[in-house]
Amino acid sequence: MENRERAQKIKMILMDVDGTLTDGKLTLLPDGEELKSYHVRDGLGILLARLAGLKTGIITGKTSKPLEIRAQKLKIVELHQGILDKMRVLEEILDKHALAPEEVAFIGDDLGDLDVLKKVGLAGAVADAHPVVKKNCHFISAHPGGGGAVREFIELILEAQDKWSVIQQKVKGLSNVSDLT
Amino acid sequence: MENRERAQKIKMILMDVDGTLTDGKLTLLPDGEELKSYHVRDGLGILLARLAGLKTGIITGKTSKPLEIRAQKLKIVELHQGILDKMRVLEEILDKHALAPEEVAFIGDDLGDLDVLKKVGLAGAVADAHPVVKKNCHFISAHPGGGGAVREFIELILEAQDKWSVIQQKVKGLSNVSDLT
Amino acid sequence: MENRERAQKIKMILMDVDGTLTDGKLTLLPDGEELKSYHVRDGLGILLARLAGLKTGIITGKTSKPLEIRAQKLKIVELHQGILDKMRVLEEILDKHALAPEEVAFIGDDLGDLDVLKKVGLAGAVADAHPVVKKNCHFISAHPGGGGAVREFIELILEAQDKWSVIQQKVKGLSNVSDLT
Amino acid sequence: MENRERAQKIKMILMDVDGTLTDGKLTLLPDGEELKSYHVRDGLGILLARLAGLKTGIITGKTSKPLEIRAQKLKIVELHQGILDKMRVLEEILDKHALAPEEVAFIGDDLGDLDVLKKVGLAGAVADAHPVVKKNCHFISAHPGGGGAVREFIELILEAQDKWSVIQQKVKGLSNVSDLT
Repeated sequence: MENRERAQKIKMILMDVDGTLTDGKLTLLPDGEELKSYHVRDGLGILLARLAGLKTGIITGKTSKPLEIRAQKLKIVELHQGILDKMRVLEEILDKHALAPEEVAFIGDDLGDLDVLKKVGLAGAVADAHPVVKKNCHFISAHPGGGGAVREFIELILEAQDKWSVIQQKVKGLSNVSDLT
Repeated sequence: MENRERAQKIKMILMDVDGTLTDGKLTLLPDGEELKSYHVRDGLGILLARLAGLKTGIITGKTSKPLEIRAQKLKIVELHQGILDKMRVLEEILDKHALAPEEVAFIGDDLGDLDVLKKVGLAGAVADAHPVVKKNCHFISAHPGGGGAVREFIELILEAQDKWSVIQQKVKGLSNVSDLT
Repeated sequence: MENRERAQKIKMILMDVDGTLTDGKLTLLPDGEELKSYHVRDGLGILLARLAGLKTGIITGKTSKPLEIRAQKLKIVELHQGILDKMRVLEEILDKHALAPEEVAFIGDDLGDLDVLKKVGLAGAVADAHPVVKKNCHFISAHPGGGGAVREFIELILEAQDKWSVIQQKVKGLSNVSDLT
Repeated sequence: MENRERAQKIKMILMDVDGTLTDGKLTLLPDGEELKSYHVRDGLGILLARLAGLKTGIITGKTSKPLEIRAQKLKIVELHQGILDKMRVLEEILDKHALAPEEVAFIGDDLGDLDVLKKVGLAGAVADAHPVVKKNCHFISAHPGGGGAVREFIELILEAQDKWSVIQQKVKGLSNVSDLT
């Protein structure tokens, strides 16, 4: 099956964080706090997905306060932090939203994402993902993690679903709220 | 029309911020504050543009306190933050400064910049801009956003307008103030 | 001797920090504190090594509080900071753990690592190491320091020792603790 | 004249900061403070130069408190911040240390460094320097600013002056002080 065909069925986009929405770098503050860098073009991608009526979610092994704030701002529906067994969480999400695996897309970068990637309808790997992850994905982005990989993944889906005109109308409908991405 | 010819008419240079004056990375602090990185060579470019008698301005979708401080330091004339409809702001600026669209240059990186880029006399995209943005610009920089792309764009204009000797005299006239970029 | 053969004998993996576990950048805070960026995929590598029964350690010329916190989190057995003479510390570690040099691997990037690299059984250099260091190592990673070089080095050892199935079982045995990398 | 010959005469190494000792990025804190990233391998280079009996100095257009701390730690002899007219400062330094221009090396990246680069005995440009700067330098580093360019420049000089054995003896003479780079 082609990626376009796979993408047409997607109703929810799930994402890993470290190495996927970020470049994997953890900048350590003196108190042990970890700073991470997200990308503005991924932020716009998540906004576009929402305007197109797609749900978004995050499943990550680590836990961070700033991610909570960012997820809230981007209106991400499912946020699961500190997850070792991502498969269990995927199944909970499928259940809760009454979705079949082929209606869900996931993008990740490392071995902890592998089970979920093998299960979902559209599996994406960032350009600099672990080689084993890449081998098990339908789509490999041109950009690395934290550099716009998630945006590419989302646009693949939006294009397959012909969502651009819907989005443009929705954008016009947005009140002039600042700082949406 | 050649870029050189377009550049000769420019009286004001407008810029996007995230992904253009920065590399698009948003480093999140524990309180949700977003750190961004500007480039020293872009800062010098904006100083050179000012010395050459060109006006500069910023139109950005996001809002950040440090940008206000930087814009003030670089004596940027127009600073518009939290703007969803950049076209409306462009028209206000044209009106206020009594400029024709062909007297204004804009450089950006993403879909939110597209309408403005199609309108202005000289449209620039950073090396890592969205493919659709690149297709609609006269000039694509060699450097990525936040890595000197804006500097290239400004130098294209300064060279077309033969401004280097004017600038050199103005530099000599500057009192020895520190930290201009 | 092949790298695979060398890797089969390894019981302990030692690492340099700046330029190896980090990209060598020191981001200076106004009070002189130095921020550094570690990589999440190296963190998972160190966790995998531990699950495979390998000991890990750090020998670094510099001193930083966040490194202490990270080393503790990753359960790194030997942490030696502020070390000018890394050879002396290597010998102490060999002695303490009753290891032969050929049972120890070391990965580094600069001249201060050279003596130790010449001594150990498996010597690794990051992709962007000093040329003289590269010339003296058995293994050169594809990734640069702070970008997953250490992960590659660890996986070379895990594969040579056929540890993947052991690791998979151990992962299942982990209670669902968050933030292990 | 060959670079080797030029390098043999050098007694003092002067450096620009933003874009040379750093990658040119200015990460803005909410209070307007600018964070910058130095490279550990440049730090070791400056230490090696000192052990080899070479003097070091900095001439920079900007001003930052962390640079003062770093310059002190690396025992940099001349630190000049907030300098618009770098040529004037070069002449003061030549005078104070009774040096001829051909006994001084300078490495920089942008137009503000140009006059000084044309004057000194050995002129270096970082890999990503402004094209006009590159055209006016004897040496162009393989690494970009903030990524080890200064280290390369220093090693060129140390090798031309055959200083490695002197340095090795001096390193042995250092008491085991931590965090020298």
